[in-house]
Amino acid sequence: MDKLQDIIAKITPLDDNIMTKVQTRLDTLTKPIGSLGALESLAKQFVGARKTLTPAAPHKAIVLMAADHGVAIENVSAYPQEVTEQMIYNFCSGGAAINVLAKHTNADLILVDVGVTAELPAHLPILHRKVRHGTNNIRCGAAMSETDVMQAIHIGVDIANSLIDNGIQVIGLGEMGIGNTTVSSAIASVLMDKSPSEVTGVGTGLDDKLLAHKVNVVSEAIAINNPNANDVIDVLTKVGGLEIASLTGVILAGACRNVLIIIDGFIASTAALAAYRLCPDVKDYFIAAHLSPEPGHNVILQELSLTPLLYLQMRLGEGTGAALGMTILDASLKILNEMATFDEAKVASALTD
Amino acid sequence: MDKLQDIIAKITPLDDNIMTKVQTRLDTLTKPIGSLGALESLAKQFVGARKTLTPAAPHKAIVLMAADHGVAIENVSAYPQEVTEQMIYNFCSGGAAINVLAKHTNADLILVDVGVTAELPAHLPILHRKVRHGTNNIRCGAAMSETDVMQAIHIGVDIANSLIDNGIQVIGLGEMGIGNTTVSSAIASVLMDKSPSEVTGVGTGLDDKLLAHKVNVVSEAIAINNPNANDVIDVLTKVGGLEIASLTGVILAGACRNVLIIIDGFIASTAALAAYRLCPDVKDYFIAAHLSPEPGHNVILQELSLTPLLYLQMRLGEGTGAALGMTILDASLKILNEMATFDEAKVASALTD
Repeated sequence: MDKLQDIIAKITPLDDNIMTKVQTRLDTLTKPIGSLGALESLAKQFVGARKTLTPAAPHKAIVLMAADHGVAIENVSAYPQEVTEQMIYNFCSGGAAINVLAKHTNADLILVDVGVTAELPAHLPILHRKVRHGTNNIRCGAAMSETDVMQAIHIGVDIANSLIDNGIQVIGLGEMGIGNTTVSSAIASVLMDKSPSEVTGVGTGLDDKLLAHKVNVVSEAIAINNPNANDVIDVLTKVGGLEIASLTGVILAGACRNVLIIIDGFIASTAALAAYRLCPDVKDYFIAAHLSPEPGHNVILQELSLTPLLYLQMRLGEGTGAALGMTILDASLKILNEMATFDEAKVASALTD
Repeated sequence: MDKLQDIIAKITPLDDNIMTKVQTRLDTLTKPIGSLGALESLAKQFVGARKTLTPAAPHKAIVLMAADHGVAIENVSAYPQEVTEQMIYNFCSGGAAINVLAKHTNADLILVDVGVTAELPAHLPILHRKVRHGTNNIRCGAAMSETDVMQAIHIGVDIANSLIDNGIQVIGLGEMGIGNTTVSSAIASVLMDKSPSEVTGVGTGLDDKLLAHKVNVVSEAIAINNPNANDVIDVLTKVGGLEIASLTGVILAGACRNVLIIIDGFIASTAALAAYRLCPDVKDYFIAAHLSPEPGHNVILQELSLTPLLYLQMRLGEGTGAALGMTILDASLKILNEMATFDEAKVASALTD
């Protein structure tokens, strides 16, 4: 925990002074004051994190953490567990939605095996960081050991640090793992003291009967494990997932080094919630890209007081919503950098100024 | 009216047959059925309009119609009327928000003077289509003659046709004109039988007192003109604007030639409402890019049963929201064209299939 505590201790709120300066600059641009809404607040947030008034177009990466879940055996997903492995191959050959959307927004896509059940060949263009071959079934006991959780978090920390060392300034959260909406519901339920039914949805696609079954599985997992809601590491150990723990590490390391974090859907938001409970200041670095129809996503975003940018009814994960959110962040920085001021353009400013 | 009736008669609903085929294709891609939400429906809408199963990346244009409004004299805007002219120069030199965002989404920006009060030099890189030097003050009588309205509509028709002749497949609606939220509120109030206070907002920025004054101006304009709510041309004549009439023409010509129309904010949405009342089938071609905080925008989008993609609290106009919406449409077509199928990627499809 020492290394993690060091990181947490170094996370600071955004720089208010520079944000005031950039708002003054935004107010001189040829548009009514505040009329670009979220584009203005995103530019301000980026500048407040990066502590520069003249930010260049940011280099962006989506970190896609993949892992398996023992609970997948409980018939909680529309897809069999082997799809996690199969999708890794799909990511590697460029055929998945996140490949298309990461390219669309010009973001690097970093694929990480942090706990896929299958052995993955060394030649695959992924980071091989397998902590273990999937978690245990949380309906029967703890997902993993505390050591596993800490290892997964530190994997995320190290990957984020390496990306940042190489110039990445914005990180989007991606994940893949059959069964991980079930685990996310358990984490969300415990950390926010919500009933499982409030934070459990159809995931990749379940009918009403299977959804009711999934809610029961979440309830039973919480009952048998009795995680300590005030101890994030205990919650991740008992009902967590390796990809969620790793993303928590990515978030903490990113915020520690002034990198904005683009949250994706429900699963990524549970990592955001976990990081927030470990360090509330991390929230300053969050951008909520979109709102998923998974009910738990909205509950978490409200808990974090975050307003999503996009309402596209997307519920795929992989970082797909984060990728689209990045296009809006890019636009916000172009507004800051490329628009003319009232003086430059010889346009009269507001009568009410 | 003859030419316009010909156009309206040729507007057809989207091609259901090809849309069913493309949904089948979308359902074979490596993602849970329907999990890309609006990205799937946008791709389907584009294909249904273009009637091709293999759409290339679309060429896009934003048509920015500029005009002045006699009602600007009534202290209904935070900005003086000369800002319309000044902003034209700003658009021409690339310093406005729409310049930045059109470039961001790789769309052509077509600037049109359809009724700016000032004389604009012939050398400016705009289309000089001035119908008249601004409208009359609608608080005192009709904005313009029916002949003016028809001329403005046909200007929009001709510009859209010319763009489409040159390969444009998607058109975003932009506008500039100090005072045009006041006019839009009057149009929206009449066409939807809503009280002026329901559809009038702060525009470029008014305090509570000036907002109440603006609502009064809208009420008085409607009272003195008594437009026939069942006659769109009469409404535009009595309380309309030249840029709104021209955008109505753009919409009708675009839909007639299978081009999707990206609605921007409140003012553009009044043109969409006008076109819809002239031809309900035009609605199939609409994409609501974003939701503005102007209250009338939401009322119109609900009237048209449209769900906006972006919630960015933007209230600038110019086509800025439409430009950002285009980035989502582009992403949707890349999803359709570039993702692998379950078979291609050797990924197991849903157990519940």
